[in-house]
Parts: sequence; structure tokens; C-alpha cells
Amino acid sequence: MAKLTSWVDVAPDSDFTIHNIPFGIFSNANNSPRIGVAIGDEILDLVAVAKLGCFDQLKIDKSVFNRPVLNDFIALGKPVTKKIRKEIQKLLSDKKSRIKGKSGILIPRKKAKMHMPVKIGDYTDFYSSVEHATNVGKMFRDPENALLPNWKHIPVGYHGRASSIVIDGTPIHRPKGQVLPKGKERPVFQASNRLDFELEIGFIIGKNSRLGNPVSTDKAEDHIFGLVLFNDWSARDIQKWEYVPLGPFLGKNFASAISPWVVTLEALEEFKVHGPKQTPRVLPYLRFEGAKNYDLNLEVAIKPQGGKETRVSYSNFKYMYWNMCQQLAHHTSNGCDVKIGDIMASGTISGKEDTSFGSMLELAWAGTKPLSLSDGSTRVFINDNDTVTLRGHGKKNGVRVGFGQVSNKIKPAR
Amino acid sequence: MAKLTSWVDVAPDSDFTIHNIPFGIFSNANNSPRIGVAIGDEILDLVAVAKLGCFDQLKIDKSVFNRPVLNDFIALGKPVTKKIRKEIQKLLSDKKSRIKGKSGILIPRKKAKMHMPVKIGDYTDFYSSVEHATNVGKMFRDPENALLPNWKHIPVGYHGRASSIVIDGTPIHRPKGQVLPKGKERPVFQASNRLDFELEIGFIIGKNSRLGNPVSTDKAEDHIFGLVLFNDWSARDIQKWEYVPLGPFLGKNFASAISPWVVTLEALEEFKVHGPKQTPRVLPYLRFEGAKNYDLNLEVAIKPQGGKETRVSYSNFKYMYWNMCQQLAHHTSNGCDVKIGDIMASGTISGKEDTSFGSMLELAWAGTKPLSLSDGSTRVFINDNDTVTLRGHGKKNGVRVGFGQVSNKIKPAR
Repeated sequence: MAKLTSWVDVAPDSDFTIHNIPFGIFSNANNSPRIGVAIGDEILDLVAVAKLGCFDQLKIDKSVFNRPVLNDFIALGKPVTKKIRKEIQKLLSDKKSRIKGKSGILIPRKKAKMHMPVKIGDYTDFYSSVEHATNVGKMFRDPENALLPNWKHIPVGYHGRASSIVIDGTPIHRPKGQVLPKGKERPVFQASNRLDFELEIGFIIGKNSRLGNPVSTDKAEDHIFGLVLFNDWSARDIQKWEYVPLGPFLGKNFASAISPWVVTLEALEEFKVHGPKQTPRVLPYLRFEGAKNYDLNLEVAIKPQGGKETRVSYSNFKYMYWNMCQQLAHHTSNGCDVKIGDIMASGTISGKEDTSFGSMLELAWAGTKPLSLSDGSTRVFINDNDTVTLRGHGKKNGVRVGFGQVSNKIKPAR
Repeated sequence: MAKLTSWVDVAPDSDFTIHNIPFGIFSNANNSPRIGVAIGDEILDLVAVAKLGCFDQLKIDKSVFNRPVLNDFIALGKPVTKKIRKEIQKLLSDKKSRIKGKSGILIPRKKAKMHMPVKIGDYTDFYSSVEHATNVGKMFRDPENALLPNWKHIPVGYHGRASSIVIDGTPIHRPKGQVLPKGKERPVFQASNRLDFELEIGFIIGKNSRLGNPVSTDKAEDHIFGLVLFNDWSARDIQKWEYVPLGPFLGKNFASAISPWVVTLEALEEFKVHGPKQTPRVLPYLRFEGAKNYDLNLEVAIKPQGGKETRVSYSNFKYMYWNMCQQLAHHTSNGCDVKIGDIMASGTISGKEDTSFGSMLELAWAGTKPLSLSDGSTRVFINDNDTVTLRGHGKKNGVRVGFGQVSNKIKPAR
């Protein structure tokens, strides 16, 4: 990759470099929700850029930038959105750029409000980290046979709730629900006291498939527009009592949270790496060629009310056992269709080291190993008024591309 | 209920009597998809009715009838849609009705194409028949402890796939997927050979709730617009291998099917009955007052290619252990929000008698008791080119209100 620079000031540790060009929906005092691109501490207003005629050669309907979600923009198709991204990269790097110095083109990110980037149709959560699945199996089932028999054959997944997915910054109330007190036979209804985060990455579908028509692993990337950080908030006590035999439900659907900037697959191309070897060999429809994992550094921080942040986990997206192409091929292998705006999350991303686990459940090993925060307090799960922040970025040959963050404060149960 | 009659011819056994007034989306040679009401063998075109000024006193935006889904109509709110329904009932029963004899008002149902009635946001499937859950428990787990410990405390549910829900008449291809052959350790990828229907009823959300705000059982009916028949198509072999620990996924999401006419709660009021006694007593947030079950006769028929239909199940919606108000209160008890157009299905509706079971799995008891069809063939699951039809109606004091049908032909795997 040729290293580019922008005439916009971009700090060396910014996630939003000229190599990124992530798309999102913003509004500010002057503008209703519309499409923008993050660059350094600024947002490039694509409605304003389009008005200057910068995309005229692409012959697209310019009103597509003036929408409250990215869906119609994504529906232009990857051949077009890739050209738009390249054009923006040029406009932001060219020292004689026609947009340079124009008023109303750049909006400070601090003064903008970010919105949900897409109207989500369906949401699916996978369970694709072998370390996470093994940890959970050790804690709750059999330490000697931690992985269930299907795990290495199937990228296990389940449907989640789309309506309760919220954006970075949205406060989340601790959920109430049925839990079975230890040693009791009857459940009680109370505020969860095992509230947890799950460090995940979600991918956003960029191209429809038709019902009855599977998407193969080698065509899967055509159907993936981009990625976001995904916090799959979980209430472990509610989940434990409800999940047999049909899976997690109220233990999950009170809220999930995503980062606002959608980082395209094109921006992440440089960070592709090979994933773990899959043994036993997977069935033919799950086989793939080339590097399909991504070397993206991930971290989780907890900030108590009035205190400082403590980083509690350092993980990496490259640890995934099942990659996104396999997940999508599996999801559609029975003919299930996918639609633009659907989101599919990775499942908790844990590594081998106990500092790389992607949930409190694992980090504090089901409540047995409290974590110390910098203010001297300890945590086994998340307390009221704690703020949990996920961050992620790739860095290679001096080039950085990142997601920003997804951060949510937990408010007491209502 | 005062017995009404319509100036439109309505056969005595029609589901679409003057007491029903179900809403749906139709198109024909002259009209793009729009809202209609079924009456006997006709469809009342609400765009045409609105043009005549029949709803002028309600001061609504008439264009709401000229939409390809009911969502905006439903969003008018129940106080308004109830008035519209009452006005339509009057227009169709009054012998001096201003619409009587007007051209283009009534369209023969046979000449119309029906479409999905709503844009579905999220889809949830419950598991609320005690007989069904017990049957499944007996077959796959412990006959002595067929119900899991949570079942009588929780209206167990899980998220399903909204994108693959199709309308009556849509052919469905037999899905392929991973199955574990008996006695083997490694799965194979093949066409399902345990394809099954599930006889269910779905309710459509009629009013949004806000994230973080539970809906109580006594407010639940305000959030339910109406009901449809729901066939939760299932591939038992795929489901069996995949479902531990996160629930059904590809064994379900290749297709579900609904009937096209949404029967409002108001039309079903007459058929309300008390449900089974719930023991042990449920937690306070699941308690309710009054009759919340519905006496609705349900049946399933199988028609082989070129053969005649055989009715294989006679069930009733009144058998449900958990009612819709409890399902909705539970679903939102953790603050999960619901949106207009969401659909929530009951789970398979089985009764006590073995002729009232709502799936082939139960009717043929996991393949051990083949069912005979009228052409002399037998079935343990559904064969290629079989057509499966669900029907349902209430009948009381000579008044009939029904759903019509949801019927799908199974095509061979691709």
C-alpha cells in the first residue's frame, strides 16, 4: 500500500487516517442526519462534497448521501461505493484538492452527533472463537470435553434482536429478569447481578442474496460492506436460567451496541492474515482460499463513575477460528437470504492468554478471580455507573486504520 | 355480538364474514400492491373506498392505503384503525351503503395476488404449548422429566429470521445442511430428510414500545394488531445437530410462512376463553386478569403431487399454556423494545389427543408411527412435491371468523 497523507490534520494515533475512509451517519446544529466520512478529528460531509460536483462522473443520485442510514448508499453496490471511497481518498490527500478550504465541508467530530449507521434487518450472532467457546465449556460443562461435538464442524450461530441494537454513547439500563438463585428450585424476578460485555466485531451485509440461493465462501466478500465494533451486552444470570433448550433470549436482547463508523473491507485489506488451522478438515462448503482473518488489535476498558479507565482486555480479531466468509456461507447454506443492513457479529473474541479474554465471565473466571481497577476497586461483573469501552485498530508498516470506539454507561435498573 | 349480514355474497363456511374484516396487501392487473379487506370471495379495495370519501371524517392521510405493506396503516394507532374497521363493517353491511354497486370497489380474490402484509422487523418464536414441549421432551430427553425446569416459569422463546418469512403460496425448496448420520462422529452436508411443518399462530405488533420500557400483561393487547397462521417450517435433522448450545438456526431459517390476511384482535374478541391453569403460580409480571386464550380451530392437511388432501391434525389455539399477553410481557420484561410489524409466533400448537399434534415429529412420533394419506401412501416427514396447508377459524353462535390458509409446496433441494 502506498502511504498517503491528508491535508487535514490527522494525529499519528488516529483511527481515522486517510487509509481508512469509514462511512457513518452524523447530524449537527445545521444538518439533519446524513452520510459523512471520518478523517482525523473531522467529518467530511458527503452531501456538501456531492453538491460541489465531486461525484458527478459516477452518475449517481446525489440524494443518496442525504439519508438517515447508509442502506441506500450501500445498495449502490460495491463497484460504485469503492469508486466513491477512492475519490474521497483522492479529495482528502490531493494538496490541490477542489474541496480544500471550502466552507461547510469539514465538521468537527466533537460537535456532531452520530447515529445508527444502518437500518438493521436481521441480526445474527456467531460463537466463533475457539478460546471463548472452550472457556465457557470449561466453566459450565466438562473441563475435559469443553467443546461440544458440533463446534469444529459448524460456525455455530443464533439469531439475535435487531431492534435493541444501539449506537456508541447510548446509556443502557441494567436489565431485570428471571434468575434462579443458587440451590433454589423457583426463580425470582430481579435486576441482573451478572451483567457482562462481550468483545465482538460485526459485519454489515452489503449485497442482498435471494432466498434459496447460498453464498459460497469465495463470493462472501462481495456481500460484506464493512465492519464495526460490537458489544453483545449479556446478563449471565438471566441467560443461564432461560437458555435451555432454545438458546439465549432475554439475557441478550436488552441491548447490543455498535461503533458508529463502518470500516470497509477495502480499508482492512492490508491487515489480512491466515487464521488458525482448522482440524478436522471442514466440509467442502466451508472451505476457502487465501487469508480470511484480520490482524486487528482490540481492547476493552472499564471506567467507574468519576474514576479513570482501566484496560482489562487486549485481544485480536485474528484469533477467530471461523472467519466471516465461512460464517456467511454457513448462514446461507440452507438457502436463507441476507439483506443489505443485516449485521452478523463474531461472537466473543478471546485469545489464549487470560489477559486477552473478551468477557468478564472469562476474565474473572465466573466470579472467582476479581479484576482490580486503577481506583482500587474490583470487579467480577459490571457495576452500575461503570462505562465499558471497546476499541480496535489495525497497524502495519506505519499505516493505521481503526474503528474508534463503542462506549456505554450502565445505569441502574429501572 | 349482534349478528350482521353483508350485501356481498358470503358463503356460510367463509372465513371472511362481515364479522371478520381482515386487512391484507393485494395487487391485480390494474393495481399495484395496496391495502384491501377480504369479504367472502371478494377483496374490498381500500384505496378506492377512501377515494369515495368514506374515511374523510377520520381526517387521515388517505395515501396510507396505497402502500405495499400495512405498517403505516397500523401506525395510525388502534383507536383509528378500530374506527376504520367499524366503518368498513358498516359500509359492507348497510343495504343502502354508498359503496354498493360502485365499480372497482370489489375485486375477486381469485384474480388478485396477495403479498406479505407487513414489513417484518424482528421475528420471535415461542414454545408455549405444554403438550408440544412435553412430546419433544419425551422423544429426545427423559420421558419421566419431559419438561425442563424453566418451562413452567418462563414462556420460553428465541429469535428467528425475519427475512425468510414468506407468504401463502410461495414454493419452498427442501433445505440442505449439516446432519450427523446415526452412529457417526462426522457430519455430512445433504438435503434434509426430516422436513417438518409446525402449526402455529403469529401475532403482529401494532404499537411500538421504547427500549428500557416493559409492556405489562394488562397493556399487552394495545400492542397487538392482529393474528396470522404461521408455519414454522423445520428441518429436524439439521436442527438436531446444530442446536446445542445456542438454539435452532439453519434448521428453521430456510423459510417460515404466513397467511396473507391479518385478523384483528377485535374480530377475535368473541372467541376468548380461559387457558389452562398455570401451576406453579407464575411470577407477578406474568400474571393477568380475564380470558386471554382464543378458541380457534386449527387444522393441517397434506396433499401429495396429483393427489387429494388428507387432514392430518385438528388442533386449537385455546390449548396454549402461555398466552400472547404473557409472551409479550416476558419479551419486554428486560426492557427489550418491540416495533410495529414485528411478528411473534406461538410455537407449535399441540393438544392432548394424538390427532391434535401440530408437527409431523409428534404425529408420526419421531418416525416410528407413519401416517396414512388418502392416496394410500404414508408419511413420517414431508416429501418433495407435498403441499402442506394450515387453516384456522373461530365459530360461535353461528358467527365465523377465520384466517383462510397458508399453503406451501415443497420443491426438491437445489
